[in-house]
Amino acid sequence: MKRGMVQAPSEEEVIRRLEELGSSIAKQILSGKEPYLEIPVRTLANTIWDEARKILVLGPRTAKRSFLDVGESKKFMQTVLMLSLILRARREGDYPTIRDLYYTGKHTIYYVDENGRRRSEETWDDQRESNAVIQDLEVALGLLREHMGIMHDAKGKIVGNLVVRSKGYEIDLSRMGSGAYAIPPNVDRLEILSVDAEYVLVVEKDAIFERLNEEEFWKRSRCILVTGKGQPDRSTRRMVRRLWEEFDLPVYVLTDADSYGFYIYSVYRSGSISLSYESERLATPGARFLGVAVSDIDRYKIPKNYIIKATERDLKRAKELLNYPWFKESKGWVQELELFLEKGEKVEIEALSGHGFKFLSQKYIPEKIETGSYLY
Amino acid sequence: MKRGMVQAPSEEEVIRRLEELGSSIAKQILSGKEPYLEIPVRTLANTIWDEARKILVLGPRTAKRSFLDVGESKKFMQTVLMLSLILRARREGDYPTIRDLYYTGKHTIYYVDENGRRRSEETWDDQRESNAVIQDLEVALGLLREHMGIMHDAKGKIVGNLVVRSKGYEIDLSRMGSGAYAIPPNVDRLEILSVDAEYVLVVEKDAIFERLNEEEFWKRSRCILVTGKGQPDRSTRRMVRRLWEEFDLPVYVLTDADSYGFYIYSVYRSGSISLSYESERLATPGARFLGVAVSDIDRYKIPKNYIIKATERDLKRAKELLNYPWFKESKGWVQELELFLEKGEKVEIEALSGHGFKFLSQKYIPEKIETGSYLY
Repeated sequence: MKRGMVQAPSEEEVIRRLEELGSSIAKQILSGKEPYLEIPVRTLANTIWDEARKILVLGPRTAKRSFLDVGESKKFMQTVLMLSLILRARREGDYPTIRDLYYTGKHTIYYVDENGRRRSEETWDDQRESNAVIQDLEVALGLLREHMGIMHDAKGKIVGNLVVRSKGYEIDLSRMGSGAYAIPPNVDRLEILSVDAEYVLVVEKDAIFERLNEEEFWKRSRCILVTGKGQPDRSTRRMVRRLWEEFDLPVYVLTDADSYGFYIYSVYRSGSISLSYESERLATPGARFLGVAVSDIDRYKIPKNYIIKATERDLKRAKELLNYPWFKESKGWVQELELFLEKGEKVEIEALSGHGFKFLSQKYIPEKIETGSYLY
Repeated sequence: MKRGMVQAPSEEEVIRRLEELGSSIAKQILSGKEPYLEIPVRTLANTIWDEARKILVLGPRTAKRSFLDVGESKKFMQTVLMLSLILRARREGDYPTIRDLYYTGKHTIYYVDENGRRRSEETWDDQRESNAVIQDLEVALGLLREHMGIMHDAKGKIVGNLVVRSKGYEIDLSRMGSGAYAIPPNVDRLEILSVDAEYVLVVEKDAIFERLNEEEFWKRSRCILVTGKGQPDRSTRRMVRRLWEEFDLPVYVLTDADSYGFYIYSVYRSGSISLSYESERLATPGARFLGVAVSDIDRYKIPKNYIIKATERDLKRAKELLNYPWFKESKGWVQELELFLEKGEKVEIEALSGHGFKFLSQKYIPEKIETGSYLY
């Protein structure tokens, strides 16, 4: 039996890396040099589609952030401020949220300008600024913010035949009853002790998850059932990725047949284009789109009065998706998206209930998996 | 040790009640009478503030829904249709969502009108119509929809020293590690085997829940930690209510200091005015508002640059809250809401981190509880 070890660097290692970055700046200053930080550039221009691994990765470009450059000194200060906050939290065993970090670092700096006027400036005005330097530190240190003990909303749920260990407790995710295990923010701290399943089924909608859980679909079908409740958060994505990567489990994603559903699949599969640096750890390039596909409308004879007209926004989004590298190079997806644009029709997962409440779990899902009728 | 028994009626009992309603209609028809349903009226006019129990309840008014009345026959048909769908699901052990019920029941009825014209009508056009008859059935049968096996999104999470039993599994909610137990949709099916805690702390924000869970606040403070992620769903409310009612635990609610936060407290405490029939089972009239209070801005010296200006919408909402019976009759709340209206200032929970990351868990929460500085 394979085992998924803890993937997170140890607390000591995290502290060491944070200290190292800080002391590199101190050394520059002590040796009389102009202090600067070297940060990988996170722009789209420095984002590369890695053909072999099927994910977006950051390119090699880095940027210098100098303290003595007027245009960069504020950003330099913000980065060092955030570094010190995170390091303090790690040393004291605190788990701040990104919002906590924003508030803790927010203060007013008073100074006298070159004309002798007293002036003041905020360290940051809104959370976008403090979040941006957290992201800079992630790429500069090669750590996910979860590794640095930063907390965030965690939406994901999971059940199935797997046993994990967290904080010393063994947790059997097949014994959650009608409830589920809420995926923790830092998935890399989970040790996955054993998995006895044939595939992972990721469902977009929480209510569908509840239903499949209540009828113990995962037990009958020997699968791991996951939901990220709409667009998934980082922890859900990381959990799915680990099950795929460490246990070679096929991953199937089930969403509504509309642009939003296709996009959710896209996030699980490849992440978002603007946060490509996350993909290396959060994306599941092997994820398969089980449905509901636009072509299922005909195939499964969805009654006309269940079909919803696609909005302008749906169609615009679908056109954007056609330009994503992972859709563009997939013949199946190009067909699917073009069919969507041509027909302008969308349907929800629940429309399948027109064929009876058991249709989804006893016919649709098993049949699509058995016949290999999925997109990827 | 007290024990919280399963609160849900048995499957047999649910089926019996559904069948009884159905056969009462059949009997009317077979005996040659005009078939009708008698449904408690769910309007505001039939909503009563129960002074003693501090909750809103439905008044005694009921309405007849006759099949042979042109103005009521569609609603009659919808109610009977929904009854048959729910009964079928219960007999076959299915767990449809409200969306599934909408689709399964949706079909086109063709008929010839009084002028000989062929016409057609949908059983229902949108989900509001199918939801409304589910609510009618809830009040007519005295059952929550969860009792009838109807699934919905379940957002809540819980950790702490309590052990529950669900589907035969004993689940120890103190052994969830960095994760949590996702509260199941039908909380009344949970058997609460043991509780070893002094109070329940309900936090509005999931990220704060994660942080308090990661630092094991609930273990140190011997509390049960719950989040409903913003405005709570029915299951989270029912869980909190059961802990308060069956185990006499004080319940403290922690939200941002703004109208939205106050409203969230209000939902836990008394439910929504338009769904008063739920309150009898979902409300926690003893719930206390721990903070963050507007008066905390001075008391805890929240720095000026952490304070956010209230919007017009905030102020409008606060004025509405002043008219809620449970706020109107509370001297503390009237003062608090008037202070909010006067100052027009709001703050977030995370603003307390300005005093250090540990301030919230090691000073603010314990101090407010010890000194009894809460509103109710």
